Amino acid sequence: MLRKALSRALDPEMRVAPGLSPTNQWIVGLICFSILLGVMETEPRLTSGFEMAFAAAHLMLFGTFLLEYLARLYAAPENPRFGSSLRYAFTFASLVDLLVLLSFLMPFFGLEAALFRMIRAARLLRLARLGRYSLAIQLISRAIAERRHELGISIVVAAGLMLMSSTALYLAERGVQPEDFGSIPRAMWWSVATLTTVGYGDIVPVTILGRIFAALTAVTGIGLIALPTGILAGAFSDALRSIRETTGADRE
Amino acid sequence: MLRKALSRALDPEMRVAPGLSPTNQWIVGLICFSILLGVMETEPRLTSGFEMAFAAAHLMLFGTFLLEYLARLYAAPENPRFGSSLRYAFTFASLVDLLVLLSFLMPFFGLEAALFRMIRAARLLRLARLGRYSLAIQLISRAIAERRHELGISIVVAAGLMLMSSTALYLAERGVQPEDFGSIPRAMWWSVATLTTVGYGDIVPVTILGRIFAALTAVTGIGLIALPTGILAGAFSDALRSIRETTGADRE
Amino acid sequence: MLRKALSRALDPEMRVAPGLSPTNQWIVGLICFSILLGVMETEPRLTSGFEMAFAAAHLMLFGTFLLEYLARLYAAPENPRFGSSLRYAFTFASLVDLLVLLSFLMPFFGLEAALFRMIRAARLLRLARLGRYSLAIQLISRAIAERRHELGISIVVAAGLMLMSSTALYLAERGVQPEDFGSIPRAMWWSVATLTTVGYGDIVPVTILGRIFAALTAVTGIGLIALPTGILAGAFSDALRSIRETTGADRE
Amino acid sequence: MLRKALSRALDPEMRVAPGLSPTNQWIVGLICFSILLGVMETEPRLTSGFEMAFAAAHLMLFGTFLLEYLARLYAAPENPRFGSSLRYAFTFASLVDLLVLLSFLMPFFGLEAALFRMIRAARLLRLARLGRYSLAIQLISRAIAERRHELGISIVVAAGLMLMSSTALYLAERGVQPEDFGSIPRAMWWSVATLTTVGYGDIVPVTILGRIFAALTAVTGIGLIALPTGILAGAFSDALRSIRETTGADRE
Repeated sequence: MLRKALSRALDPEMRVAPGLSPTNQWIVGLICFSILLGVMETEPRLTSGFEMAFAAAHLMLFGTFLLEYLARLYAAPENPRFGSSLRYAFTFASLVDLLVLLSFLMPFFGLEAALFRMIRAARLLRLARLGRYSLAIQLISRAIAERRHELGISIVVAAGLMLMSSTALYLAERGVQPEDFGSIPRAMWWSVATLTTVGYGDIVPVTILGRIFAALTAVTGIGLIALPTGILAGAFSDALRSIRETTGADRE
Repeated sequence: MLRKALSRALDPEMRVAPGLSPTNQWIVGLICFSILLGVMETEPRLTSGFEMAFAAAHLMLFGTFLLEYLARLYAAPENPRFGSSLRYAFTFASLVDLLVLLSFLMPFFGLEAALFRMIRAARLLRLARLGRYSLAIQLISRAIAERRHELGISIVVAAGLMLMSSTALYLAERGVQPEDFGSIPRAMWWSVATLTTVGYGDIVPVTILGRIFAALTAVTGIGLIALPTGILAGAFSDALRSIRETTGADRE
Repeated sequence: MLRKALSRALDPEMRVAPGLSPTNQWIVGLICFSILLGVMETEPRLTSGFEMAFAAAHLMLFGTFLLEYLARLYAAPENPRFGSSLRYAFTFASLVDLLVLLSFLMPFFGLEAALFRMIRAARLLRLARLGRYSLAIQLISRAIAERRHELGISIVVAAGLMLMSSTALYLAERGVQPEDFGSIPRAMWWSVATLTTVGYGDIVPVTILGRIFAALTAVTGIGLIALPTGILAGAFSDALRSIRETTGADRE
Repeated sequence: MLRKALSRALDPEMRVAPGLSPTNQWIVGLICFSILLGVMETEPRLTSGFEMAFAAAHLMLFGTFLLEYLARLYAAPENPRFGSSLRYAFTFASLVDLLVLLSFLMPFFGLEAALFRMIRAARLLRLARLGRYSLAIQLISRAIAERRHELGISIVVAAGLMLMSSTALYLAERGVQPEDFGSIPRAMWWSVATLTTVGYGDIVPVTILGRIFAALTAVTGIGLIALPTGILAGAFSDALRSIRETTGADRE
């Protein structure tokens, strides 16, 4: 009985009602909290004076995640996909959970705990799929999947333009700025910043020829933004229309 | 009679003709003018030499808004929703008006008058809804409301990407730029500027690994712009189509 | 006969065949050339050594535009809209032409010739409307005109956001950067650069609160770009569809 | 027999099966590799210590491309479009191949090998058209071709705005920043960076008038991004619809 109840509370596949179980909602919240904690711990100004509170939070999280890990192992046989606790223990999801547990012992080994928890956060997406955002995720991923060739072409075009613009700037500027434009790979840093219209301005062309090439690159950059946007805009309205037609359901 | 006339002139709900009443148009104009005044007053170079003119404008605005406040109180019983002046005086709208009136006495208390008037400006939106922009606002808010899940997903994705890119940059750059990339929260400032393609350039990665991560972040930033744009583009054309179909009315 | 021929060559309204007359195409070319000349003359590095060539080009352009002006005056009576040369001479278009002629004598008065020619260039648009780009201009202007309310709302929303973000930054940063954030109008320069995602980086917030507000501003800036893009994207596909349906004509 | 087999393997027009032949896939890979090599060679930090490996890679590539060139010459008579090896040798494609071969001997002449290989890379697009991305390229190029007038108008509008904004900034800033805004061509560098929202920040207006003009330019820049994006978004959904209707085929 306990095993069945645990399985229903923890394993989204065994849940009868739609959406996330309250237990899993709590776990999602705790994972987010543990990531926040990991992020904050990298900044001494935020932790100094609160070392005790951080340690207590760690202990609490470690205890809860350990409990959750053991409970999942215990409840695993209920799901016919796993059969036994041992087989579940060696699934990818379970190994990630174990890794996250070990990450709490990390400070003793001097490694980055924040990283490990982010890996676990990626697993959140799997849980989230069952939640209320399910249709939205379905819509976005379908739109991207259906236009993957067009988006792939955009990336190839972008790579080609980056190559051309960094070669042009290398030829124009290597004489006056050997440190920043002295080779094509070096010029690429400028090229990416310009094509994406980020434009840090830490490196800028100063020769007339370099500036003309840079202007062309910047204008091309607008096209590079317009291309995926145009593709995705069309894809979204198509995806939405086809979802409506198949399900006949109202959005929301 | 006076009360009825005042109510029709001041309370958009009691107005018979469509659109804003001339009185309310004047009040909207005065609110905008008082915000402009509040903004200008923060700059000594704009006020020096015109202290008298500013004081006079303040007095005029204070008098008019006081008059408007009292007139609204007096006319409130006409609207069945309020019944009595006292009940109207404790509505949110009326309390904001009182606050704005007090803001004119603020210089004596040394507080920021500009802020208070902006709060009032937010109420302008409520008035504006009845004006000629009504259909446009309806269209935009419907488009955003219908795609709130998709836009919500975009924000979650954006937050995840920001977390990942600031962690990557923290790992790559903390050694050489401890002041700017010495912790994940510090790296976030750079990360936001890059993902939104603002790219101030006050903080830039200098290591090769950091620049590779930064390039990936910048390219991802384009996708982050394309995502909401694509969603909104589809939403607008859908919203417009459905408005047309329901009302059967021509735009404009 | 000469007057009729001149009228047909110069006045787009009197032309029988579609498109620009060869004479007007030449004039359009010369106007573009005279603008280029005016732009180049502001840069001493481009003119030094070529003073004679520039003077000769000026003389040639002055002569041709004088001839064109007189020819238009002479041919004006052919167009029933003007009736007499004198009435044509006082139309807006003719006065601009006269101004441009005077602009060639400007160097003697020490004024900016480049400006005057740009005013004339604006008139080019009127000529261009009759050319082959006619459908494209019609499409773009119709799309913008039909959504002028939505675009107007975008501008009002943008102005409100700029006001809010510059007030927030003024409050957060005025203490540490009085020169750049010491008043709301000063903070607006930063605010515009961030909301449009230009991000010069000449002025950046340095306090934690200022950076949090700045991050919110930058994210909002993406929405501000997505809004008009989404509106225009929908407008273009609608405008194109309705043009197709009305004319039944193939594009191109 | 050998000639026929070679022709089928090398000449996409002679291939029976759809898609790229394995031989051509290998050649595409080698061209990409040779470009990567050319890019890397410009950076001494990447090559130092691996001079032998680079030389060997060059020799290998030179040998393979020489073999390919001779094989194409030998197989040319199979394709009725060429008839003889000599006529093929003087086609544009063959001359480019010869140029690329010569580029490997370039180090001896001190010229840029990277450039020559990029020219060859452009030819890759011709090969790629036969590959699996065929529909995506068709879609993108059709969308751009059908809206070339609208996109052309966008470019003319952009050029006009750049001219106006650089003249405005020249007039506002030439007094205080003669080096950067001392002439209209100089102000153009700033103008391009702002209109494309790249915003390097190496040159920024400092006068109040200059900043007001700059703010208008930045806001206009958003419109300039929205224009092509809106045009392309509409074009993509139209192109996709018409491709579907003509072929009746499902995507993917």
